[in-house]
Amino acid sequence: MAAAQASPAQIPLGAYIFRRLRSIGVHHIFGCPGDFNLNLLDHLYTVEDINWIGTCNELNGAYAADGYARVRGIPGVLVTTYGVGELSAINGISGAYSEHVPIIHIVGTTSRLAQKDHTMIHHTLGEQWDHDTFQQMSKPVRSAAANLVNDASFAEDVDKVIEVCVKTRKPVYIFVPMDTPDILISSERLDTPLDLEITNPGKEDIEAEIVELILNRMQTAEKPSVLVDVFAHRYGLAKVITELLDFTAFPGFVTPLSKSILDETGPHYNGLYNGKLTPSKQVKDRVENADFLLHIGPLPSDSNTGGWSQNFNEKGRIILHPDYISIWGRRWDGVNFVPIVKKLLAAARARKTEFTKSGSQFLLNNIPSSIQKNGIVNGNSKLALRGPLEQHHVWKQFSPFLRKGDCVIAEVGSAQYGTLDLELPTEAVFFTQLYYSCIGFTVGALLGALVARREQGNNGRVILFVGDGSLHMTVQEISTIIRNRFKPTIVLINNQGYTIERVIHGPAQQYNDISESWDYQQMLHFFGAPKASKSYRAGTYEELESVLRDPEFNSNQHIQLLEIFMDKFDSPWMLTEQVNIMQEKSSLALRKWDEECGRKRLVLDSNLFRSQYVLSQSASQQAAAKSAELRQLENGLE
Amino acid sequence: MAAAQASPAQIPLGAYIFRRLRSIGVHHIFGCPGDFNLNLLDHLYTVEDINWIGTCNELNGAYAADGYARVRGIPGVLVTTYGVGELSAINGISGAYSEHVPIIHIVGTTSRLAQKDHTMIHHTLGEQWDHDTFQQMSKPVRSAAANLVNDASFAEDVDKVIEVCVKTRKPVYIFVPMDTPDILISSERLDTPLDLEITNPGKEDIEAEIVELILNRMQTAEKPSVLVDVFAHRYGLAKVITELLDFTAFPGFVTPLSKSILDETGPHYNGLYNGKLTPSKQVKDRVENADFLLHIGPLPSDSNTGGWSQNFNEKGRIILHPDYISIWGRRWDGVNFVPIVKKLLAAARARKTEFTKSGSQFLLNNIPSSIQKNGIVNGNSKLALRGPLEQHHVWKQFSPFLRKGDCVIAEVGSAQYGTLDLELPTEAVFFTQLYYSCIGFTVGALLGALVARREQGNNGRVILFVGDGSLHMTVQEISTIIRNRFKPTIVLINNQGYTIERVIHGPAQQYNDISESWDYQQMLHFFGAPKASKSYRAGTYEELESVLRDPEFNSNQHIQLLEIFMDKFDSPWMLTEQVNIMQEKSSLALRKWDEECGRKRLVLDSNLFRSQYVLSQSASQQAAAKSAELRQLENGLE
Repeated sequence: MAAAQASPAQIPLGAYIFRRLRSIGVHHIFGCPGDFNLNLLDHLYTVEDINWIGTCNELNGAYAADGYARVRGIPGVLVTTYGVGELSAINGISGAYSEHVPIIHIVGTTSRLAQKDHTMIHHTLGEQWDHDTFQQMSKPVRSAAANLVNDASFAEDVDKVIEVCVKTRKPVYIFVPMDTPDILISSERLDTPLDLEITNPGKEDIEAEIVELILNRMQTAEKPSVLVDVFAHRYGLAKVITELLDFTAFPGFVTPLSKSILDETGPHYNGLYNGKLTPSKQVKDRVENADFLLHIGPLPSDSNTGGWSQNFNEKGRIILHPDYISIWGRRWDGVNFVPIVKKLLAAARARKTEFTKSGSQFLLNNIPSSIQKNGIVNGNSKLALRGPLEQHHVWKQFSPFLRKGDCVIAEVGSAQYGTLDLELPTEAVFFTQLYYSCIGFTVGALLGALVARREQGNNGRVILFVGDGSLHMTVQEISTIIRNRFKPTIVLINNQGYTIERVIHGPAQQYNDISESWDYQQMLHFFGAPKASKSYRAGTYEELESVLRDPEFNSNQHIQLLEIFMDKFDSPWMLTEQVNIMQEKSSLALRKWDEECGRKRLVLDSNLFRSQYVLSQSASQQAAAKSAELRQLENGLE
Repeated sequence: MAAAQASPAQIPLGAYIFRRLRSIGVHHIFGCPGDFNLNLLDHLYTVEDINWIGTCNELNGAYAADGYARVRGIPGVLVTTYGVGELSAINGISGAYSEHVPIIHIVGTTSRLAQKDHTMIHHTLGEQWDHDTFQQMSKPVRSAAANLVNDASFAEDVDKVIEVCVKTRKPVYIFVPMDTPDILISSERLDTPLDLEITNPGKEDIEAEIVELILNRMQTAEKPSVLVDVFAHRYGLAKVITELLDFTAFPGFVTPLSKSILDETGPHYNGLYNGKLTPSKQVKDRVENADFLLHIGPLPSDSNTGGWSQNFNEKGRIILHPDYISIWGRRWDGVNFVPIVKKLLAAARARKTEFTKSGSQFLLNNIPSSIQKNGIVNGNSKLALRGPLEQHHVWKQFSPFLRKGDCVIAEVGSAQYGTLDLELPTEAVFFTQLYYSCIGFTVGALLGALVARREQGNNGRVILFVGDGSLHMTVQEISTIIRNRFKPTIVLINNQGYTIERVIHGPAQQYNDISESWDYQQMLHFFGAPKASKSYRAGTYEELESVLRDPEFNSNQHIQLLEIFMDKFDSPWMLTEQVNIMQEKSSLALRKWDEECGRKRLVLDSNLFRSQYVLSQSASQQAAAKSAELRQLENGLE
């Protein structure tokens, strides 16, 4: 029943929020209901073309909002309830913050009357406690928050925080006291679109100076390279940068986190740069010894830099970053790279003639990564692989399976290192949470990616590579995927535990084991998949090839699972080597510090305690040695 | 390999921590491995009789530690990794904090060298970020923290924080930088046991005064009652209070949160007091009109007080609380009730003769709750129930099934309100998270309770009542229960969604629906249960009775599931009525405030948007009316 009639110029606050979200392109909202957000959610159904996707729990909902944002390039929206819900989701928000993924996290809170009275209502922390306490906890993992407690500024507060989210590409919070969604407010602000453009207000002169500096050097460069990192992706610069590469014919490179930002089948893609772990020597040389290196959007975490083993010629390096620009040591803080990159393209085009002339010499015609190209390791292999699947080779077997426009998601752990060996087809989308690295992330993110693709009208396939330990964290969201009639392909690595941790420490320790008794072949049907949906298994290259060539598997008419088996001590080469690089560095530093302090330590051999594993452990060492040998052979073939 | 030989007086910090935990009685530790805690966990295997229980994710691990602590009465221990792990668990810690459950949350953090350098290692928040940031986030939900960054005070810091945890019955954190577990420290402190006794130092005189005041009034009371609330349980006072009731013959009562603290088959248990929702009029009268009401350990949240409808005779009420004592308006802050209750018993005994004389008149011989006793609703019913299961009657059907020493766990939602109608057998354990009320809690808590019971050498059955919406949140932990060869009975309410929310708001709204396609009958085997383990279904009273009388089901040789079906709009009477009481109050207050502010609102009829549900909705109203009618009839029989 309506307690009051809305005048044409009035709208309930709840509807206002959803109208604004709809205006930035959002069609689906993730989350879990709770008694403090229910009347807010009612208003969702009054706004056209915006829908609710209930997730099994809030952490998975946050992951879904994150995956949605990564694919659509606009904020993902998550709704949770006070305390219990918002805190369950907080780790997903933290991951989005750390990797610059925009999420609008709307939390239904206690009513303002209850807040004033410090009511000891369920979900609170006790007598006398401030109801705002939970809000303080998320402060470090958001770039702004609107706490809707002031009637006079409801609409303004909502608008502002959405704009901050879009511009900072980081999570924001909207706290909605449960007494507010029904309140009628003026709808006037809806007539003015939100201000979503990223600019450097008042800094147009600095922008011009920077563009001029870069452009001049571009024209004289003899060995130019463009390293496109992940923030370029987050800020929607893929297209502009591709045009810049088109125009200049400079060779482009990616990092682990930015894989897929350049079309890997296109002329400008020249491979993956990952410091000492760069698969191709030519790529490594071309990036590290460039006299002009345009480094766009770097995120220099351990796993995005080959364990901090990047080695640039700083004299030639220009860094374009969301927070600053750096040109040969000169640094401009507080200048966002988005307008710079756009203006750089426009300015380059304005000097078209000179550029095309000098440009053609730089075209490298797609330097292949040795790993990706030689006959041994490619799926279309000249030397066929036989026998049990190995981490060193298995990933590349999927390259020929991939098709134009596929979306590939790689879970934290071996999958995110292994899939770096994949050759992606044109128009492919790829993502992995390689910096924040929270296992379990992708099962929720898969749901978000599927929703985003549906909104885009994209019917391409979505393929998830996930390990068993990760799947255990968040498995229930597969039911939400089924419930919404999506049909991803899930490739599950069944290797009995946390492989990434076995590589790092205590390979045979009990703590790295997981339950081995899940019957994954039953999983899809347990969660309600259509009867016709199928699950597959492969333990050898022959079995894998047979599945990957199966027309039914390729047609992907239903959600499907492919369970592949590998040795529990086997791991992808890039993971193993990154861990080696990092551990060498850190143990050296630690030894030095211990000596300085006269400190003694007892380092346990973590294999002593589980003797039954020792045999398999040595088998694992053999496998690693074999992989190293093969890689040497491959490098020789380059 | 040992980098240094430990002298007899030296021990690695990691081993020190686990030795101390072992010394307070902990035999099992929950959590997930992560690269920042692996070398800490190595030391767990060097300490005798302490074991690792890996959980599928950290939130479930926190719930398990909580369930363990509730059953064992000592801190549960959780180990997670920096950022991703600690934040995933934080909602479980918050719940423990809110309900005064002791958890020691150990977080493996980045090394002190990395902290100093602000290294952008995985799991961190970006360049320049302080590695301590995540630590700040958990501050509101812990009573103390030790950040082990000072070599000189490692052992002291660990000891102190464990003592605080035991004494405050609230979570504490230990942050262990990954460079520290192997460091050798003096083992000297291990010779001195931790100080775990709760006292009021320097306040012995006040204690004596309080005891004297209470005792004098006890001796002159004509209508005495003892209301034992949940903090009495948390602080381990069940036995002392039972002895006090034995000695005085005063009638004892419980609240929803303290159910099972008194033996329901014993002479001192007189029923549940829950304000206006107290099932028995006699109980309500006896508590509310007592001239001497000893109210021990109150937690006055909405759901523990019948929606704040408790109505005491304050002139006769004495409150004994962990933080204060209150006697007829006089209040002593900072005086813990534990020594008071113990001294009260001792002092009463010292006056034995007078007491026994006057005491016998108070013995009420177990006032029955009408709901629990009359012929209609009891499982051993005189009037047999037929047809589809209803929330109003179904819970009591389980009373005859329960046996001495069973542990019953009730999930947040309908189960926690419905199980309040259960009659518990002697030595039963019962718990529910009725204040923090985070759905999904019990699936993890079940694991913890099972581990605790195994440590206690208790082979009694553990029975979980859980709804489908809650189960979806945390379902994977059933695999950990199976992996550790536990055999609980899981009673699953399959009623297609979040019933507790349907009662509160938007009964037919889409947001209150969940996936209905899970095949629960497959669940145990999907997670690897033994082939002989069975799943059962019941949709009618006849089917339920048949299962509950099945000898195989009763023998409980394996983990087993009983799926019971109920209407999606049906709910337990105590839930429905509590919501009514609270909504009446809050809508009144809101209307008043709106009028004061001249504020207008548009309250949507949340059923308008999903017309297909309207029919079932009216069916639900009929069911509610029928329940109300029956209850009236029952009250007449009293």
